Amino acid sequence: MHFNVPEEDAWQAADVLSKADVRGIDSHGVARLKTYVDMFSIGRLNPNPNVRVVREKKSIATVDGDSGLGLVVGPKANKIAMDKAAEYGSGWVSVCNTNHYGIASYYSLQALERDMIGWSMTNSSKIVVPLWGAERRLGTNPISIAFPGYKNPPIVIDMATSVVAFGKIEQAKRQGKNVPEGWMIDGRGNSTTSPDDVYEGGLLPLGSTRELGGHKGYALSAMVDILSCVLSGANWGPFAPPFALFEEEPKESVGKGIGHFFGAMQIDGFVEVEVFKKRIDHWIEVFRKTKPAPGQEAVLIPGDPEHEAEQIRSKEGVPVIRAVVDDLTAISKRTGVPF
Amino acid sequence: MHFNVPEEDAWQAADVLSKADVRGIDSHGVARLKTYVDMFSIGRLNPNPNVRVVREKKSIATVDGDSGLGLVVGPKANKIAMDKAAEYGSGWVSVCNTNHYGIASYYSLQALERDMIGWSMTNSSKIVVPLWGAERRLGTNPISIAFPGYKNPPIVIDMATSVVAFGKIEQAKRQGKNVPEGWMIDGRGNSTTSPDDVYEGGLLPLGSTRELGGHKGYALSAMVDILSCVLSGANWGPFAPPFALFEEEPKESVGKGIGHFFGAMQIDGFVEVEVFKKRIDHWIEVFRKTKPAPGQEAVLIPGDPEHEAEQIRSKEGVPVIRAVVDDLTAISKRTGVPF
Repeated sequence: MHFNVPEEDAWQAADVLSKADVRGIDSHGVARLKTYVDMFSIGRLNPNPNVRVVREKKSIATVDGDSGLGLVVGPKANKIAMDKAAEYGSGWVSVCNTNHYGIASYYSLQALERDMIGWSMTNSSKIVVPLWGAERRLGTNPISIAFPGYKNPPIVIDMATSVVAFGKIEQAKRQGKNVPEGWMIDGRGNSTTSPDDVYEGGLLPLGSTRELGGHKGYALSAMVDILSCVLSGANWGPFAPPFALFEEEPKESVGKGIGHFFGAMQIDGFVEVEVFKKRIDHWIEVFRKTKPAPGQEAVLIPGDPEHEAEQIRSKEGVPVIRAVVDDLTAISKRTGVPF
Repeated sequence: MHFNVPEEDAWQAADVLSKADVRGIDSHGVARLKTYVDMFSIGRLNPNPNVRVVREKKSIATVDGDSGLGLVVGPKANKIAMDKAAEYGSGWVSVCNTNHYGIASYYSLQALERDMIGWSMTNSSKIVVPLWGAERRLGTNPISIAFPGYKNPPIVIDMATSVVAFGKIEQAKRQGKNVPEGWMIDGRGNSTTSPDDVYEGGLLPLGSTRELGGHKGYALSAMVDILSCVLSGANWGPFAPPFALFEEEPKESVGKGIGHFFGAMQIDGFVEVEVFKKRIDHWIEVFRKTKPAPGQEAVLIPGDPEHEAEQIRSKEGVPVIRAVVDDLTAISKRTGVPF
């Protein structure tokens, strides 16, 4: 609100960030407030965007985020997808002219509240190399999809299409450790295990090598890039503008902002909602009973770790590391917002 | 037609199989005719299915394949998805009571002919272990999506969600070679490189290990399983009936046949078709120019190998190995169909 974001939008943005923290995805929660504040400070974000449909046909639409905060544009665009699903059975929205939208699963989870299956994807600034490449061309481009259970918590898939998130490399660097083979390449395109090399090099796509299916992770990342950006007219691939101020701005622009892609499908159009949810429960129970591999306790269900974090943190609160507290204190001083 | 399949359906099935061969995916072409013939012989396939919508809401539907040949049910169900897309902007169909449908990309490519983006997924009988599991629970569950180019051939993603297809293990076995670490586990759930172990063990999901993102391949496979089967009422996960006669039939059934999921989105509802296709061309050109890693010639575009095979084979014909010729000869003798 300090930057003239309307109160309702500010609450919405706060909800997206805090959901990340409550679900244990600390990298995408209030730890990122500083970057959003930086972006507002230099005028890169429009505090009061006119998020609007620029082209549509019944169940599908292209939405222009008017350079708004992704945490505000995302929920508005996702609502358009869900409203379309309520009317036409499904709704699909490709969004341009937007910015980082927080955790992908925030949006797929919203669809569950309306008895829909939710989909969410976004591109981000370049850090991933295509298989066989020696330079960054894609973001970590996550995919999320969520399915509701009946007595069980939902199945929530939320995954970067790179082997690991950039944060894992930074963590290893702070701890003075090497990273496993298959995570990254150096600036010449060779495999490396030294986290310092990532600044000149980049992350590998899911699958890492040709032998282990690295072309598949690259293909999935390409899919996210095309659905989110090529379709909407956002900056795709290496042209995605950076999120953080210290990242280099691409020399060329091929569209507006970054892009998201949202989808929602009404369960009731396929099968009775209760029947579907009970089948999901059955699926979960069968998969939990899978005989575990030696040394493993049990097979998990996608979303288990985040659900467990949510159970604990919604009662006990969210632990915040000192560096984030320092950031928040600095923001408080700079803006006069109490902390 | 020998098994009373209507002529039009027989041509359709032949078209799906030959498309696989022409695109260089030999494992899914006429090499599989023997299995389809076996399945007809024992009455497992309905030669004249009534493929019908059992529930729908505008852009979405559940389709029952009436136990037909997947090569016939697939195109009929995909047509329902595309017709819905023509009317509502997008169309999404989950299919139960069907059988193996050939290559996933046959269906996504069909959508391109109507200026749509095509999606296709299917489950298959259990061969893949969930991450941290020691027993088979999922099929190789492929995902395909296709985007049309303007002057360039389309971007065609068609990938199993396991590290590799089962055929790669069989190939290594025939050549007396070990397979790379990360492809499979043995019957006790331990990593192995001996192809013989696969019969008691199983394939690993894309990502292989926790460290390299095996939970992501497992999650993608789960997504395909749920969209294709849990939604439609087909047999999901370990309950999928086998394709080949020598595979063990699951003791329990939780639905009808196997399942597919098809989607189509009208490009024109998002952006002018020509603009989109030209953007795809630009995307392709930028990615081709990626600096290659040491020892690599160039970064490929998803679908490149299949497009190259199609260019060559549609002129020069499809090479068929002796074992397949022998199978076809035997089928000819058994059915009286000339070969």
